[in-house]
Amino acid sequence: MNYTKINQNHLDELISIVGEAYVFFDKENIEKYSHDETEDLVFYPEVVLKPKNPEEISAVLKFCNREHISITPRGAGTGLSGGALPINKGVVLSMERFNQIIAIDERNLQVTVEPGVINEVLQNAVKEKGLFYPPDPASKGSCFIGGNLAENSGGPKAVKYGVTKDYVLNLEVVLPTGEIVWTGANTLKNSTGYNLTQLLVGSEGTLGIITKVVFKLIPYPKFNLVMLVPFFDTNDACKAVSEIFKAGVVPSGMEFMERDALLWGAKHIGDDTFQIGEKIEAHLLIEVDGNDFEMLYKECDAIYKVLENFNCDEILFADDQTQKDRLWKIRRVVGEAVKSKSIYKEEDTVVPRAELPILLKGVKEIGAKYGFISVCYGHAGDGNLHVNIIKNNMSDEDWNTKIPTAIREIFELCVSLKGTISGEHGIGLVQKNYMDIAFNSTLLTLQKNIKKLFDPNNILNPGKMFP
Amino acid sequence: MNYTKINQNHLDELISIVGEAYVFFDKENIEKYSHDETEDLVFYPEVVLKPKNPEEISAVLKFCNREHISITPRGAGTGLSGGALPINKGVVLSMERFNQIIAIDERNLQVTVEPGVINEVLQNAVKEKGLFYPPDPASKGSCFIGGNLAENSGGPKAVKYGVTKDYVLNLEVVLPTGEIVWTGANTLKNSTGYNLTQLLVGSEGTLGIITKVVFKLIPYPKFNLVMLVPFFDTNDACKAVSEIFKAGVVPSGMEFMERDALLWGAKHIGDDTFQIGEKIEAHLLIEVDGNDFEMLYKECDAIYKVLENFNCDEILFADDQTQKDRLWKIRRVVGEAVKSKSIYKEEDTVVPRAELPILLKGVKEIGAKYGFISVCYGHAGDGNLHVNIIKNNMSDEDWNTKIPTAIREIFELCVSLKGTISGEHGIGLVQKNYMDIAFNSTLLTLQKNIKKLFDPNNILNPGKMFP
Repeated sequence: MNYTKINQNHLDELISIVGEAYVFFDKENIEKYSHDETEDLVFYPEVVLKPKNPEEISAVLKFCNREHISITPRGAGTGLSGGALPINKGVVLSMERFNQIIAIDERNLQVTVEPGVINEVLQNAVKEKGLFYPPDPASKGSCFIGGNLAENSGGPKAVKYGVTKDYVLNLEVVLPTGEIVWTGANTLKNSTGYNLTQLLVGSEGTLGIITKVVFKLIPYPKFNLVMLVPFFDTNDACKAVSEIFKAGVVPSGMEFMERDALLWGAKHIGDDTFQIGEKIEAHLLIEVDGNDFEMLYKECDAIYKVLENFNCDEILFADDQTQKDRLWKIRRVVGEAVKSKSIYKEEDTVVPRAELPILLKGVKEIGAKYGFISVCYGHAGDGNLHVNIIKNNMSDEDWNTKIPTAIREIFELCVSLKGTISGEHGIGLVQKNYMDIAFNSTLLTLQKNIKKLFDPNNILNPGKMFP
Repeated sequence: MNYTKINQNHLDELISIVGEAYVFFDKENIEKYSHDETEDLVFYPEVVLKPKNPEEISAVLKFCNREHISITPRGAGTGLSGGALPINKGVVLSMERFNQIIAIDERNLQVTVEPGVINEVLQNAVKEKGLFYPPDPASKGSCFIGGNLAENSGGPKAVKYGVTKDYVLNLEVVLPTGEIVWTGANTLKNSTGYNLTQLLVGSEGTLGIITKVVFKLIPYPKFNLVMLVPFFDTNDACKAVSEIFKAGVVPSGMEFMERDALLWGAKHIGDDTFQIGEKIEAHLLIEVDGNDFEMLYKECDAIYKVLENFNCDEILFADDQTQKDRLWKIRRVVGEAVKSKSIYKEEDTVVPRAELPILLKGVKEIGAKYGFISVCYGHAGDGNLHVNIIKNNMSDEDWNTKIPTAIREIFELCVSLKGTISGEHGIGLVQKNYMDIAFNSTLLTLQKNIKKLFDPNNILNPGKMFP
């Protein structure tokens, strides 16, 4: 699509809206906005704006609509699907000044927050009041709440507590045409009109700019226990996941790591003392939480009983904070560790959890067929497996021609198992050409028409999500 | 709107699609489809169809689109907002033959079910496998899953376990134009495209006909305890609700009943021995559940500690099944009891839970101003208060002219408290003229345009939801 190139008159107008101090166009200042955490992709915007309030955003959107200038909204730039990349140049709208926790409502167990607040900052602020905001992507120390909303982020706690969408009650949104609206109500139940709130969550910045969110919170669980379970057989690790749930236990974390994932993670944080038995193929990192310590030990016993039916090595049980932190730190750093080793592509596959063994086996077979190795880890309790395809010594040509076909096969396998092509990273730029695997043409057209309803001139994050 | 009147040729075509045995047009057979449980409203359709599969529905929709015939989908007819009333005559599409539980997937804790299955039938079927489908409207013994999806139904368990939307993973839907699609994937996490699944849930049969649903399930909690707490002051009862959550307890039931609600309920089931102290104004029915009995007693202790700060009468503690059943039976029958006493209107108000005292006080003040009494009860843990406006001796003229104004004031109060106009009953026919209180014209237009995208000829449940 053709968008208007920004000229001095446009700049003057944008400056008059957000103020000179918050408009950037020199290369040095906009470099950081030319990439996110997706592979090695780089797209420079023409200008970066840092508005402060919904009214400024409304004015920017109205102006860009009139002038047909492309706008790419951006949180912290930790996205893994290229959603924040300004592929049509134009404006990057950085939400970094929307960084206020507006109100923690202890009476109603709710929080109203701006989208530029860092996930962990929000978590810590509500924890001080004894409250819990569970969604916690691996990047929780840097990612913004707004990005979490755009991608419907999950994280390890999702298995028990759900994903971002499950905590959203109400959104203040600036529509692409400039209107500022609230999508719903601050209530736990709502049967009033179409669920516009849930339509916006996970819409990857294509339907509107979220400027405030009201989340529900829950009481913070007082205790937790963590264990690391080594398996001699990867299949066993996958199978154990379903069996634990079937035993009536809902863990607050249920993470799967292939041997290499754990090794690379430990190495990445310099934890050289971390030992993995020679024949261990995979691990499950399992956490249980709750308000009663005895109850947690009972749950661990129930998990042990399930594990007795599988061929595991000795379980590493963590009940002090240092041990727990060490295990979670290794898990959280795996993505970064893989990234630092080689050029790679990460696919965010998701299937019903009992299908994990079939998915993993399929991924390895596809790898053998196309000549790549993969490192797999992820949120096994949710059937959400991050497949990291490693370039290593593969030629650039093979990498560029064979891998897209291989990825297509992986995604087709997911969908044939009643899964889909992204669990928590979104479609953005890099998966959009695979959307036909998840949706037939009727559903793709319907979604594109919804986009058109919200954004008739296609100025908001154009070229994302849809092929 | 003008719709085509059904003639013999139309009938012949409809018979050729669904079979003669499943097409009804004589008054006796269609009488039951002329009303639901909403007040005393009656609208006769021209014909009732009982299709068996998505393909038949697809053919019906294509035909009705071509001929511009209005279609009103219908579950069990237990709705309270008139959503299933064929106000434009035409076809009532009864889903009663979609009554199969297709598969209980114990490996993935999921169930695939047709929309004509009765809520309680589904609950019992999964409970036999140790699994739990929590949403349980008061009408669970008769209402269909499809109606629950249409209205995003809640019920008493919602306070801990969420509402219908929170269990829906994937929907098979026949779109108004006849295409049969699946909206999503059978996964706990999904970040692939717009959330069409959640757009369909709560859309009150206006966007498509749901023909299959995949729900997630959870392990069935082994134990529960129930208590009935009498309060001398209604305000205290409302305030105690928030305090219990703040103490870190999330009850699996937290129901509020005004004195009359409980009395009328007990009387309705002939429970004459049920005693309420003379000065008692309101009750809370509180349930806790979980897998560990000791833990439940600890939670009850925590609740007792909170209640010590309020002026309560003696707590009735139910730990055997007979007592529990008795208390829940009284609670569940309140709606029916009120209905049998007088002409009434029920408003499904909802606010953030700590605002309940203000809402209740406001309702009584509005009642005093307009000269009506009200009986209030509902899901206090969710801030969802069913306000039953009782006609008693009010003149028909006052009832017809004053009450709509009074209801408008009640809804305006809800919205000013960050609540909304329906928590779990839907908008349907009887609340549609109040939608402007919940949504401004931008949001109403947006929703109507979404409707138009799905249903360009407006044949599916026309005249509902929007003013």
